[in-house]
Amino acid sequence: MPSLNDVMKDWKNPVEMLRNSRAGMYVYPVVTPEFENWRNEQAAWRNGAVLFDQSHHMDELIVEGPQATEFLAYHGINGFGNFDLNRAKHYVPVTPNGHVIGDHIIFREREDKYVLVGRAPTSNWLMFCAAYGNWNVRIKYDPRSPSRPEGERVLRTHYRYQIQGPLAPAIFEKMNGGPVPDIKFFHVDWINVGNKKVQALRHGMSGAPGLEIWGPYEDKSYILNTILEAAKDAGVDIVRCGSRAYSTNTLESGWIPSPLPGIYTGDGMLAEYREWLGSDMYEAAGAIGGSFVSDNIEDYYVNPFELGYGFYIGWKKDDFIGKEALTKMKDAPTNRKKVTFEWNKEDVLKVISSAFEEGTPYKWIDFPQPNYASSSADMVMHGDKMVGMSMFNGYSWNERCLLSLGVVDSSVEVGDVLTMKWGEPDDTAKTSAEPHKQAEIRVRVSPTPYSSEARENYADSWRTKAA
Amino acid sequence: MPSLNDVMKDWKNPVEMLRNSRAGMYVYPVVTPEFENWRNEQAAWRNGAVLFDQSHHMDELIVEGPQATEFLAYHGINGFGNFDLNRAKHYVPVTPNGHVIGDHIIFREREDKYVLVGRAPTSNWLMFCAAYGNWNVRIKYDPRSPSRPEGERVLRTHYRYQIQGPLAPAIFEKMNGGPVPDIKFFHVDWINVGNKKVQALRHGMSGAPGLEIWGPYEDKSYILNTILEAAKDAGVDIVRCGSRAYSTNTLESGWIPSPLPGIYTGDGMLAEYREWLGSDMYEAAGAIGGSFVSDNIEDYYVNPFELGYGFYIGWKKDDFIGKEALTKMKDAPTNRKKVTFEWNKEDVLKVISSAFEEGTPYKWIDFPQPNYASSSADMVMHGDKMVGMSMFNGYSWNERCLLSLGVVDSSVEVGDVLTMKWGEPDDTAKTSAEPHKQAEIRVRVSPTPYSSEARENYADSWRTKAA
Repeated sequence: MPSLNDVMKDWKNPVEMLRNSRAGMYVYPVVTPEFENWRNEQAAWRNGAVLFDQSHHMDELIVEGPQATEFLAYHGINGFGNFDLNRAKHYVPVTPNGHVIGDHIIFREREDKYVLVGRAPTSNWLMFCAAYGNWNVRIKYDPRSPSRPEGERVLRTHYRYQIQGPLAPAIFEKMNGGPVPDIKFFHVDWINVGNKKVQALRHGMSGAPGLEIWGPYEDKSYILNTILEAAKDAGVDIVRCGSRAYSTNTLESGWIPSPLPGIYTGDGMLAEYREWLGSDMYEAAGAIGGSFVSDNIEDYYVNPFELGYGFYIGWKKDDFIGKEALTKMKDAPTNRKKVTFEWNKEDVLKVISSAFEEGTPYKWIDFPQPNYASSSADMVMHGDKMVGMSMFNGYSWNERCLLSLGVVDSSVEVGDVLTMKWGEPDDTAKTSAEPHKQAEIRVRVSPTPYSSEARENYADSWRTKAA
Repeated sequence: MPSLNDVMKDWKNPVEMLRNSRAGMYVYPVVTPEFENWRNEQAAWRNGAVLFDQSHHMDELIVEGPQATEFLAYHGINGFGNFDLNRAKHYVPVTPNGHVIGDHIIFREREDKYVLVGRAPTSNWLMFCAAYGNWNVRIKYDPRSPSRPEGERVLRTHYRYQIQGPLAPAIFEKMNGGPVPDIKFFHVDWINVGNKKVQALRHGMSGAPGLEIWGPYEDKSYILNTILEAAKDAGVDIVRCGSRAYSTNTLESGWIPSPLPGIYTGDGMLAEYREWLGSDMYEAAGAIGGSFVSDNIEDYYVNPFELGYGFYIGWKKDDFIGKEALTKMKDAPTNRKKVTFEWNKEDVLKVISSAFEEGTPYKWIDFPQPNYASSSADMVMHGDKMVGMSMFNGYSWNERCLLSLGVVDSSVEVGDVLTMKWGEPDDTAKTSAEPHKQAEIRVRVSPTPYSSEARENYADSWRTKAA
């Protein structure tokens, strides 16, 4: 099989390669599109209780062995000093040049064993690094489920469920057969689910309490039914979340799932990585979608400061990949900052309206998830100047608006109204996009995470008035 | 298990039972939501070549034995005189009272063997009838695939693929290894697909040629790949159609998939049928959705004349179930007629716009398939008078509009602009609908099947002008 490096040679530049990917939509696979309907499912995490089936959409990597801790600490930016057995971390590896590769949630199961969960760029990078650096670690890799199983059976190593929402705690107590331990945010403890002891991570979205639980995949049906029974016993109408609503939960919580891994440039270790990566892997087969088209793929990279991960950095660690680069990047005036963009209603309706008119319409905004690539990059303009990049979008029924997450220049302030270019300037080979023309959509810069409090305090200038 | 009759006793009337169904969306199951994107997939059947995977969404019934022909002829309205081995029919059973139960596509495979494909109401009815009438037939029943397999394997008796579109013939020739026989519409012949001999039904949508092929499910992967290779050899970019686009193809072709089976009232055989039907079956677990709420479930029934099936009726047959009732219904002035409703763009945008405003919005119009029940019934009004019922809706990228199929009083003319009530007047227990208020959407009465020719000839009054 050709390597990423081989495939890149067929293209003028890697941007062109990724913009013409025919991989199709990056989906939340296997899980049914809607259990109820995506509006109710979104409402459930805000106002009730929601059940996310997270068993299928992420890679899982088990890293164990005598050097497991040392290996992971060296390849992530995070401090590891406080990484006790009952903790989880949001683990972020960067390249030697300081660019984000991706991120995983990492659980420490034993002194010498970690479970990592997340998108492929981090899994692939760590598998390469283990071999490249000759580390004494064993890695077990369980890739995400197929995007289009078409009726074939899908198996994973672990099931993974998350229960969220203001009414969730009543369910936890019934599941556990008594009060659940008071687990701190991103800490792990054991709870009962019927006759099983399972690990539970305290998670949270929009301030609502939540637990993520996991265990052997063969227990999935038992666990699911025990949760549903517990909800019934608790008198809570738990709503199972389908694949259409799922990915939009991040708009309200503020996590960007899809930064482009910064691995297409750079020499040494990065050049060897591109020889290691196969042409069927995320980095070669994935897609860039959006209005931002640059010949220089580095223009799509982000660094940890820009995503708000600066405070993760374990500066006290002797060394880790990217430390030197990050030291230089810290407090650089060129660093952008993460924000939420609120899309202007009138402009959105103009785009939708074009789907009822003759001629080439604007790029269709699919609800609730308009993204059409594994990494999105839409230009955000102040006049003629690009001042930001919109990286992940979705409609929120809870907020009654389209939102996107992205980064803006440091000069941009919350409350600024900017213009996003929506749709691609040219026809690509992407199967996930229909023929379209570009639109301009005004976006109001908002804090991340986005909250209705923030919206209500400053957004009355255009959201609540007709244009 | 309780019968339908038992369940009906728990409700004031069967309308209330069905309006409060918690079965969720009636979906096209197993097949991936989008292979490319639903806009391109719709465009493919109009302008290119599309591949429908019809292996999962319909029941299949095999009826064989010495009385197979007699049994089917007695329980369907269709003439059977010309039913040769190489033919298919659109088979329609009605109740003794002449109300449509459903419809299947029926293939005659042998003198004494028929394969029927379609929704559950017809399968259930025929299974009941075989026992009720003591017929010498053997019935094999393969129900549609589960709506939410969630990663479990799904198997059927047969795979079933359909290839449609103006570029389809080039693919057929490559599949067959030479010119395909000139099969007449709704006739069947044998063609080659690679090393397999398969049966092919000549089908057609919007005038474009098409073939439906089927065979043992274990051949599915071989057949799929042979079709894709044939398309490649023919230089045709065949587009696989996902579940989101699939159900909308009927808007352009004019078939109403979802009439409510007229089995909730009537005595004798019908009363016994309600005792036979289980509480988990389509008739008890399905849903009515839409603005039309009547205490009398017969108001939701349709007869074959209203759906345009009058010319199927085999009047020369000695007897068949419903013959007497249909004789009386024929040419009755109360018979409605099937039409297509074109939804007014401005009113649709008003509905969508409400999802960006505070308060309770109008019923969300989900794209491309807004239906939220197994049977839809939206009131179509002329002033204060209900003059029609919208029964199946969808957005057509090809026509750039929302369309629905339904029936109107005989006084209504093509070109009339009526008002559809969109959304339900009250909150029901339906999980497929979010809280909403009702909207009025103007609809223009159009012919069925809808065609762009028709549209262009008369619709310039409002479609091409801003309101």
